[in-house]
Amino acid sequence: MTAEIICVGTEILLGNIVNTNAAYLSERLASLGISVFFETTVGDNPERLENVIRQGLERSDILILSGGLGPTKDDLTKEIATKACGQELVEDEEALRRLKEYFARSHRNMTENNLKQALVPEDCTVLYNENGTAPGMVIHAKEGKKVVLLPGPPNELLPMFHDQVEPIIKELSSEVLYSDVVKIDCMGESRVAAEIEDLIEKQTNPTVAPYAKLGEVHLRVTAKAVSEDEAKKLVTPITEELYRRFGHKIFTTKEDETLEDVVVDMLSKHHIRSQQQNPVQQECLQQG
Amino acid sequence: MTAEIICVGTEILLGNIVNTNAAYLSERLASLGISVFFETTVGDNPERLENVIRQGLERSDILILSGGLGPTKDDLTKEIATKACGQELVEDEEALRRLKEYFARSHRNMTENNLKQALVPEDCTVLYNENGTAPGMVIHAKEGKKVVLLPGPPNELLPMFHDQVEPIIKELSSEVLYSDVVKIDCMGESRVAAEIEDLIEKQTNPTVAPYAKLGEVHLRVTAKAVSEDEAKKLVTPITEELYRRFGHKIFTTKEDETLEDVVVDMLSKHHIRSQQQNPVQQECLQQG
Repeated sequence: MTAEIICVGTEILLGNIVNTNAAYLSERLASLGISVFFETTVGDNPERLENVIRQGLERSDILILSGGLGPTKDDLTKEIATKACGQELVEDEEALRRLKEYFARSHRNMTENNLKQALVPEDCTVLYNENGTAPGMVIHAKEGKKVVLLPGPPNELLPMFHDQVEPIIKELSSEVLYSDVVKIDCMGESRVAAEIEDLIEKQTNPTVAPYAKLGEVHLRVTAKAVSEDEAKKLVTPITEELYRRFGHKIFTTKEDETLEDVVVDMLSKHHIRSQQQNPVQQECLQQG
Repeated sequence: MTAEIICVGTEILLGNIVNTNAAYLSERLASLGISVFFETTVGDNPERLENVIRQGLERSDILILSGGLGPTKDDLTKEIATKACGQELVEDEEALRRLKEYFARSHRNMTENNLKQALVPEDCTVLYNENGTAPGMVIHAKEGKKVVLLPGPPNELLPMFHDQVEPIIKELSSEVLYSDVVKIDCMGESRVAAEIEDLIEKQTNPTVAPYAKLGEVHLRVTAKAVSEDEAKKLVTPITEELYRRFGHKIFTTKEDETLEDVVVDMLSKHHIRSQQQNPVQQECLQQG
């Protein structure tokens, strides 16, 4: 199952904000076993946005759009996505009720343009927004495809995706991804790559991908399977083979563990159980 | 003149890194007066990458690609871009000399796969890399289009773009962009939008775009002209009109100035010239 992320907003194209929504969505989709092949950012322009959505519907199963659900004229995502899916907008009673309640509670006048936030495509699941006025939605498009619309502000997007979209995607998908990140010290990327050329050549599932980091090379070994346990069973033999080839140059296989963590951990295990920290460890802890 | 940003790397699609290159490139291109209509991220996959480049060549004047110039098998950007431009790869003597020098200097063995970093498309300007082994390049494609290839690591990409690509783009482009950011406090986005509906409706150059921020609404007024002065002349009447409509609710029109900056500034101007800071100002300065 493949997904595609489409971020809508001229402010991203102008470089005014860093697109953290895309990174968050990518990371969550990967952990759900959904392959993301494309991420596109497009401005608040109806023709270009429609073209991007239509292209996405041709090549991916799930489209996740963020941004452009606000009340202003240049918020076009819902209108354009509804049109691209061949649907019409209808009023959602619950969305309207929540909108009125929100404005009553915050003692602000509801303007005419707010009303458009209560409109939703005819065939969709509405995602009510606990942190803003714009509801999200999962449009049920042709051929079982899903078009998910999420508000742009991260404090609205993150909880809505986590609480309401992930359960829907989990039901659709039968696969999860699992990765080991084999972190290697003291070797350049090209030398590492030369020593694992055979593994990279024949890779399908799991895949092995090298990334050059400052002073380190990371090899991401990723497998896809019906459960995390099954995916781990595919990853482990490759990770073991990498240990055979690189030995003690590998300092961890954990995503979140840094060289500093490992050094501090070794120091506390071998030298200083229940006694004062030595200067090196203090230094590491302060920097870590 | 339009540009399109294409970021290459499965690690971005997996959400392992936040795409700060895209934000940097967008911001720089905007300031050079180049309109960016699309940003695409695509993985290390030859077919999908080629499709994205071909689509870009159809719809934009300049393509800026980042990532995938390394020495490993999954670094494909140069090979695919050269093919999409209908060119062949040839060895660049200076790139080869620098590569050998780099490895000699760092006392590391050069492996066979490093040699491919000295290959460049036949019709290009090579951008030598002062901070890494992969040279960048500006491919001179058909119909005067340019395909710029940049290394992915930000410490290599940023100086290469700033020092070597910007002068080339400036020569191609005859326009610059200028923006005022009119920042409004104490009003919701929908109310602000309702009051400037007429300005948004008729906008072409300058454009007016509202963005909801936490507790604030920002209106970005952007004009394009042959010089910054000319662009300012187009922006200023609109900014003045916004002052007439929103008055003291506007606290700044400067991109970098925050509400806290303005408060601190007002306090120091009106109350505490050359005497001790009052507690409110101290608080603001600490938080600012």
